[in-house]
Amino acid sequence: MISERCAACKNQRRKCPSDCIFSPCFPANDPQKFACVHKIYGGSNVGKMLQGIPTYLREQAANALYLEAKWRIHDPVYGCVGIISSLYEQIQNAEIELAKIQTQITFYKLQTQRIEAEPNSEVLQAQSSNMEQFEWDNPTIASWFN
Amino acid sequence: MISERCAACKNQRRKCPSDCIFSPCFPANDPQKFACVHKIYGGSNVGKMLQGIPTYLREQAANALYLEAKWRIHDPVYGCVGIISSLYEQIQNAEIELAKIQTQITFYKLQTQRIEAEPNSEVLQAQSSNMEQFEWDNPTIASWFN
Repeated sequence: MISERCAACKNQRRKCPSDCIFSPCFPANDPQKFACVHKIYGGSNVGKMLQGIPTYLREQAANALYLEAKWRIHDPVYGCVGIISSLYEQIQNAEIELAKIQTQITFYKLQTQRIEAEPNSEVLQAQSSNMEQFEWDNPTIASWFN
Repeated sequence: MISERCAACKNQRRKCPSDCIFSPCFPANDPQKFACVHKIYGGSNVGKMLQGIPTYLREQAANALYLEAKWRIHDPVYGCVGIISSLYEQIQNAEIELAKIQTQITFYKLQTQRIEAEPNSEVLQAQSSNMEQFEWDNPTIASWFN
């Protein structure tokens, strides 16, 4: 039986043994996957990393290494650390936005309670116009109210 | 003048040339930084990557490689891809939460407008109790209202 060599063994121009550690993770029909990790980590480092991982998790590890290698090729300075920074920034901005919305909800809740308690109060008219100003200052929040 | 070898040259037990590419990125007082990237990428791959990057960006690239290597050592299966997945999940959950809050703000806005237009309406009492149920179903949102 002539078995097809995996992408790693093809790349390294060697025979692909039956117990090849690369074979389940780097199929012959996806040479780009091994080429990427080889460029960033080197073939022997990838082999060493896979050997330290339980067999059933090796394919997932190879996929993660492939993603990291692709990101590093795409952004040679920051690699996937650049993506992580950008996601942290998104989360921080969302937290700031959420804090503003919490203030806004508290305002509406108080306003509703007060209107229910004392309808037609002049204080509420003043609060209402203050809140419109608050919404106006925040374009994202303002868009929800229009 | 006897100059101190950088962490990379110390690790590789070689002389540190005056134009050493590792020297500005891997100072002698932080041997762990080079040890980490060496373990994951191999010293010569790190050197190749740094050579492909403009000099003024090499330190930032080395810091990013160090972070990626640390994450890979900490999580040999997913490395920093695991962190990225978890951040994406956080963002998705925040988007779901935000969508619910938008609904809630719209409700409060309508409620306030209606109370102002027709105080003491029975419809509003019913809506108020529906909203309490909505808040109760979402522990995070519920906590803001208590």
